[in-house]
Amino acid sequence: MFKLKFNSQGLIPAIVQDHKSGEVLMLAYMNEESFNATLKTKKIHFYSRSRKKLWCKGETSGNIQKLKELYLDCDLDTVLVKVEQVGGAACHTGHRSCFYSKYKGGKLKICGKPLFNPNKVYKAKSKKNDVQSHKIKPV
Amino acid sequence: MFKLKFNSQGLIPAIVQDHKSGEVLMLAYMNEESFNATLKTKKIHFYSRSRKKLWCKGETSGNIQKLKELYLDCDLDTVLVKVEQVGGAACHTGHRSCFYSKYKGGKLKICGKPLFNPNKVYKAKSKKNDVQSHKIKPV
Repeated sequence: MFKLKFNSQGLIPAIVQDHKSGEVLMLAYMNEESFNATLKTKKIHFYSRSRKKLWCKGETSGNIQKLKELYLDCDLDTVLVKVEQVGGAACHTGHRSCFYSKYKGGKLKICGKPLFNPNKVYKAKSKKNDVQSHKIKPV
Repeated sequence: MFKLKFNSQGLIPAIVQDHKSGEVLMLAYMNEESFNATLKTKKIHFYSRSRKKLWCKGETSGNIQKLKELYLDCDLDTVLVKVEQVGGAACHTGHRSCFYSKYKGGKLKICGKPLFNPNKVYKAKSKKNDVQSHKIKPV
């Protein structure tokens, strides 16, 4: 048996990595409920700190993340999930990875282009499913 | 210009990834001082929450991490550093990655073997440099 070390808010950071390419796609936070939901459904679930509720990644965009492997670190306070990213893009901006901003000489340089238009994807799905979309930032 | 979003403790999680293999090696936390020290020295620095001080990764073991690339995520609240891992192992247990515990059927399975003996590395270095070693857990 093992016991995850959740922080004082009951959360644990979870790194999401593409199971084939090794690309780091995003980091979000799980609570016990979302950790268990991830294992049970084989779809990555987080705890949405902004909406304060269980969040199945991709529930709005359709870009779910299928669990392939799950690892814990030596201190049991970080999760690493290896996933198949449905739809190709993990980021709410439409980028494949949330880490599209590269530091160079004191500035951030945007790498790559969005794979989908977030305004279209989230607007359409939100109306249809009545699910609150994430805040879209300009890219 | 950009502004990192530190949490209420003044910290931001930093994912460390091997710049060639893409392997995720560890996650630790930076404060503003360690973020700036990382950029200035090109060696990865964190804030040690247990020792409550600036921590140059590898200062005791010699296994420093050379900065190759630095990315921020879409919310500016997570750092991704791509590094060259000197000595081959990032984990204080001697494992290459801290994520050597794979979840399977409700249990954790240890993957791979340590590349160095932590008791020898940290004891010897601690005596020599009078630097407090991390707690070594059985592997």
